[in-house]
Amino acid sequence: MGEADITIREILPVFLAFGVSAVVTALLIPWLRRRKAQQTEREEGVASHLKKAGTPTMGGIAILIGIFAASLFFGDRLAGEGVILFMVAGFGLIGFLDDFLKVFLKRSDGLIAWQKLLLEIVVAVVFLILLGKAGINLDMIVPFSGGSLVSFGILGIPFAVIVILATVNGVNFTDGLDGLASTVTIIVAVFFAIASVVKNGSLSLSSLAVIGAMLGFLVFNAYPAKIFMGDTGSLALGGFVAGTAYVLHMPLFIPIIGIIYAVELLSVAMQVTYFKATHGKRIFKMTPIHHHFELSGWSETQIVMRFCIITILTCCAALFALI
Amino acid sequence: MGEADITIREILPVFLAFGVSAVVTALLIPWLRRRKAQQTEREEGVASHLKKAGTPTMGGIAILIGIFAASLFFGDRLAGEGVILFMVAGFGLIGFLDDFLKVFLKRSDGLIAWQKLLLEIVVAVVFLILLGKAGINLDMIVPFSGGSLVSFGILGIPFAVIVILATVNGVNFTDGLDGLASTVTIIVAVFFAIASVVKNGSLSLSSLAVIGAMLGFLVFNAYPAKIFMGDTGSLALGGFVAGTAYVLHMPLFIPIIGIIYAVELLSVAMQVTYFKATHGKRIFKMTPIHHHFELSGWSETQIVMRFCIITILTCCAALFALI
Repeated sequence: MGEADITIREILPVFLAFGVSAVVTALLIPWLRRRKAQQTEREEGVASHLKKAGTPTMGGIAILIGIFAASLFFGDRLAGEGVILFMVAGFGLIGFLDDFLKVFLKRSDGLIAWQKLLLEIVVAVVFLILLGKAGINLDMIVPFSGGSLVSFGILGIPFAVIVILATVNGVNFTDGLDGLASTVTIIVAVFFAIASVVKNGSLSLSSLAVIGAMLGFLVFNAYPAKIFMGDTGSLALGGFVAGTAYVLHMPLFIPIIGIIYAVELLSVAMQVTYFKATHGKRIFKMTPIHHHFELSGWSETQIVMRFCIITILTCCAALFALI
Repeated sequence: MGEADITIREILPVFLAFGVSAVVTALLIPWLRRRKAQQTEREEGVASHLKKAGTPTMGGIAILIGIFAASLFFGDRLAGEGVILFMVAGFGLIGFLDDFLKVFLKRSDGLIAWQKLLLEIVVAVVFLILLGKAGINLDMIVPFSGGSLVSFGILGIPFAVIVILATVNGVNFTDGLDGLASTVTIIVAVFFAIASVVKNGSLSLSSLAVIGAMLGFLVFNAYPAKIFMGDTGSLALGGFVAGTAYVLHMPLFIPIIGIIYAVELLSVAMQVTYFKATHGKRIFKMTPIHHHFELSGWSETQIVMRFCIITILTCCAALFALI
């Protein structure tokens, strides 16, 4: 029984994070609703999204509380994962600021672009400093290479800042359909949990906390969503993905396991570039690309399920690209 | 590279089953539609289900083809799993017969109850004989016991028949909302794949084939479903779950990992018993229980997502109950 006790304890963070996140989400919904904490749906958007007006946002608060409750309660197992939690908290805070300005102070655009970018760079750089202090270098496993490492030397630092910002903004763009960012990120977190067992022989506590917290949130975020995560949630999750990838030396895996984040980000970049170059032509009907599929006749739930299926398949591939 | 090649090969069945199942499903949809191979929605059902009339059924054919394509192509890795495939094929065939009578010959009830029961018992008994011939006994791991085994001796045989029939019919009842049986069973199959690694040190080929085939089917089966699996699919999946549980000595885990199947089955049993005992009173608004939640105001997609969340949590618990 002694041994079984220990192994059962291994998975407890999932349940604790789930319970906390689900309860806090349930409490947040009426509280945010009373404060009219909702995003304004843009007029030019997809018609079917107009009915989403009035749905409270900033549910990411519940996700953060769930993640930190489990991480602190099982803090003795944190080991090198403090840096991941710093990323979650740091980017979560930027997202919270942005949401708060938009939602409570009714500043329509939240943080101004350069403010947001500056804050993101600061968090990324501090993360890299903490990573160095924790003795984790920037070597990266090359996928499908049998485990060989590559290092960009000093250039690894600006590269890491770019990877972190791209990841965080990719997750942010992904968050645009009910349950999309949550389900895709649960799959990515499961991948990280398994990858940490393969690499270190132990389950990553922060991944378990994220899985639990996201499942708890998803109870209410599944279509038709009763609450959105807002930038509070999506930036925090982006911080989790980028942070965990660096701790596991797997940033080169982000475009594989996070193929949805990558495609969402690329679709926006391509659309904007093409639009400017051609003075008004578009590649996609609308970006981020999930809106393109919506306008092409896929239903919201089909897009979410199909993006999940793609993520499961690429995570399967990545798991074996790891070895 | 040699070693990486081998490990990549480990996961290939998922991709092969996915591709075959997705392509066959895509081809089946127009073919079945032309033949009007659809289930008649009962008049007394949930109002929102009336729009499902006209959706082709028997998509389980694509699932079966996907599973068998991957299993045969990677047949050298089948080892003791032939018995599982027998269960998939055996119950899939019973389901096919049932669907065929209903859909093509327009016999409203398909197989008569006693015919179906008899066929199911025959498949279950033949499975148990094959299991014995393969040298796999009926010892069962007791969950949360630290791995101790229990045996019911000769009574293990009738017990197994009951477990198999209950499981198969539980999965059958679960199949009533778009994507419900598929998503829940993907999670259960992932559990079996991991459990087989924990117990035997290798990924179960049939679990990988089921995961891939179900993902391929789910591309079209997600809400709003373009195709249903029918009894062909749900009975085959039930056969997979019960068969794999016996091969891994884990039938006592079925009520944990398959809690949804169990609750769906129990809800029907309780409703019918209570209805008869009270001459017309009901416990639930409608059974299987997912209809009760629909009539209580949950949307179809919320029920599916919440049932998935429950299954993920119980599978987490079961993974650690295994040790």
